[in-house]
Amino acid sequence: MIEAARLRRTVTQIMEQAIASVDPRSCVKRVLAKAGDGVQVGTHSFPARRVVVVGFGKAAGTMAQAVEGILEERVEAGLVVTADGYGVECDRIEVVEASHPVPDSRGVQAARRIASIVDAAGEDDLVLVLISGGGSSLLMLPADGLTLDHLRETNELLLRSGAPIQAVNAVRKHLDQLKGGQLARRCAPAQVVSLILSDVPGDPLHVIASGPTVPDPTTFLDAHRVLQDYELWDRVPEAVRTRFARGLKGAIPETPKPGDPLFRGVYKAIVGSGVTAAEAALGAGERLGFTGLILTTELCGEAREVGQVVASLVREMVRWGRPVPRPGLLVLAGETTVTVRGSGRGGRNQEAALAAALGIAELEDVVVCFVGTDGQDGPTDAAGGLVDGGSVGRMAAGGVDPRAALLNNDAYGALSASGDLVVTGPTGTNVADLCLVAIGARS
Amino acid sequence: MIEAARLRRTVTQIMEQAIASVDPRSCVKRVLAKAGDGVQVGTHSFPARRVVVVGFGKAAGTMAQAVEGILEERVEAGLVVTADGYGVECDRIEVVEASHPVPDSRGVQAARRIASIVDAAGEDDLVLVLISGGGSSLLMLPADGLTLDHLRETNELLLRSGAPIQAVNAVRKHLDQLKGGQLARRCAPAQVVSLILSDVPGDPLHVIASGPTVPDPTTFLDAHRVLQDYELWDRVPEAVRTRFARGLKGAIPETPKPGDPLFRGVYKAIVGSGVTAAEAALGAGERLGFTGLILTTELCGEAREVGQVVASLVREMVRWGRPVPRPGLLVLAGETTVTVRGSGRGGRNQEAALAAALGIAELEDVVVCFVGTDGQDGPTDAAGGLVDGGSVGRMAAGGVDPRAALLNNDAYGALSASGDLVVTGPTGTNVADLCLVAIGARS
Repeated sequence: MIEAARLRRTVTQIMEQAIASVDPRSCVKRVLAKAGDGVQVGTHSFPARRVVVVGFGKAAGTMAQAVEGILEERVEAGLVVTADGYGVECDRIEVVEASHPVPDSRGVQAARRIASIVDAAGEDDLVLVLISGGGSSLLMLPADGLTLDHLRETNELLLRSGAPIQAVNAVRKHLDQLKGGQLARRCAPAQVVSLILSDVPGDPLHVIASGPTVPDPTTFLDAHRVLQDYELWDRVPEAVRTRFARGLKGAIPETPKPGDPLFRGVYKAIVGSGVTAAEAALGAGERLGFTGLILTTELCGEAREVGQVVASLVREMVRWGRPVPRPGLLVLAGETTVTVRGSGRGGRNQEAALAAALGIAELEDVVVCFVGTDGQDGPTDAAGGLVDGGSVGRMAAGGVDPRAALLNNDAYGALSASGDLVVTGPTGTNVADLCLVAIGARS
Repeated sequence: MIEAARLRRTVTQIMEQAIASVDPRSCVKRVLAKAGDGVQVGTHSFPARRVVVVGFGKAAGTMAQAVEGILEERVEAGLVVTADGYGVECDRIEVVEASHPVPDSRGVQAARRIASIVDAAGEDDLVLVLISGGGSSLLMLPADGLTLDHLRETNELLLRSGAPIQAVNAVRKHLDQLKGGQLARRCAPAQVVSLILSDVPGDPLHVIASGPTVPDPTTFLDAHRVLQDYELWDRVPEAVRTRFARGLKGAIPETPKPGDPLFRGVYKAIVGSGVTAAEAALGAGERLGFTGLILTTELCGEAREVGQVVASLVREMVRWGRPVPRPGLLVLAGETTVTVRGSGRGGRNQEAALAAALGIAELEDVVVCFVGTDGQDGPTDAAGGLVDGGSVGRMAAGGVDPRAALLNNDAYGALSASGDLVVTGPTGTNVADLCLVAIGARS
């Protein structure tokens, strides 16, 4: 038990360092600097220009703060839109809030102003685009002839249809003025630099915030086919059908495609992601003497099943000293899903932690932690769960049947009973979820 | 595509070597030898005695053959019971068949004869017990006052109740004459050597074949509580209630408990398991130049979710060269489960492979193989699936929608269309399932 307590503290420390590594300010500071009269991004430098900042997403405000702190008076002006409650004070860059995840007119208004700002950018200007999770619904600018309601309605139909995200996005990009590379097109002839804090495992740039600065491989034909395949063509608003009919006839310009020379003027840098957090966790663990290994930064699957697989890794470490020997640390990052069947409370990280707790019951000197880097997991005040071999016993002692709790999607109740909730409060960042698996030194 | 074909052949070769490593004959030969006038098992030798062989499970016949081949005339006599169709010819040891997985009177008859044989064993005798998967239902000897029908009825109620296997086994062991260490007790004062081919991930000896030669930590009280907790007490046969009522009053001897001195005369050796197969796969891969890593030998969880997690490992190897660099091989062993919702055909290995195929679509030079070491996966003629980045495309070209097939539990149809079924025929062994993940040398 003493070992368990010590290992729990150590893993908490590693988790905190991992989350700190993806703080939007730290992420921007790692890559952005003044260079001569211009701007340096990683190893690339961009000659002196007027710098204009636009941005969207949950971290847009904090990223804008960091940019101001670094570039100071080189920032001419700017506007970023973030989610309600995420606004921060900036000097040169205006920060506005809008509704997330359901978009509202404030978001459309901000998107319209962002469009005007980049429309006005000239050949000698540099547009710095700050992109983070949530950007897709915060930067909504309905195409000509469409309203926000048309987009919302179509979006809901798509999400309920079971269509994969690629298919959903093909439609979205053809109903909006900025998504799918169209923001970059409006920035031309200015140089564009995107700083991206990625919340999508694998960091697919065309998916993050619907890829406003990357080429769109999909066409009106693809988007039309999606609506037909999922039997939505007759159900979407008339105005959407009208637009698609015109688009299919070539009467509306396509989104910019791969190979379009305009993208030569666009530079993209992922400044932080689940990979950053996973590597920071690995580094922190190694400094503490653990043999560490990152297994994946694209973890996915149903949370309770992923928790079982992770428990199988713990049992292997206990029994056979692999895939890493004691003291050992496995790091996984990604995003699991929860199919809600019960009426309890919880989130994907709590549910995965509860499932893992069942699979490591009574093992000594092992800890599993699942945590959302944004500090929020489902509709709860917790960020995840940190369990050990005694967790299941503590739940039972607290009057909770852990298996029944899992069946009822009540991970919050179970982890609360065992004292295994991870509560960080809002962290101000949002990349992937993290899973840390540790085994102590005792053999 | 050429690389894919080559990598597929290489992985097939590794899989075949892994399965060969758990052939019951090879497994017995690795640990058993003549020693002076006695018997050598691993590093332990047992002085010259009369050797009597008993056994049960799907591999009992082939294990008996191997024992005869090694110990020759030192085998005095013996009887093993195996599943229908698994019988083989032996000289000194009688091999009988019985029904599996639903037990029948032939199994009871064989169990009764095995009990007589070990009852007659004396102080100078060595009883060699050959244990393999399926042994639990092949070695059924109802306790006094109970019939096979009583046991079958109770068993069915337990399996439908959702009680975990430990709870189910606590009841089973208290309704049978040989399970839960009772076979070992009847062998005393003879020396007992168990050779175990394990089909349960983690090799828990008290679970494999219901632990006839290991102590039983559970009591009549535990067993009674299980029936009450799962509301089965009023539903089990009257004869079961009568036995438990007597057991609770101490009128019937308990199963032998941990610490019982009788187990000093019992030696147990796991001669083969999923661990053996995984280590053989690792060795075969390393000889072919792969950097290899065993992640777990206790893999579990819903097959389609496990397939997704495995695909996330593949994507990590492709993108970041970890957890192993190119050419790399990850090995996992265990047993996944399938919740059947559709009407298609398949098995847990095929379903995991199909899910993995969706997660590695269009990646080059990667292969994922899921295979049952017994050569049988679900009610099909296939043993599993071997998929690559082109599998999903081949399914589509063959007119199969892979996502729809997965939803319909029709992995067999999908893998058949893409030419990705693994067909080995019955392998004569039965340990865990294997999952091999390979990435080729090309960077």
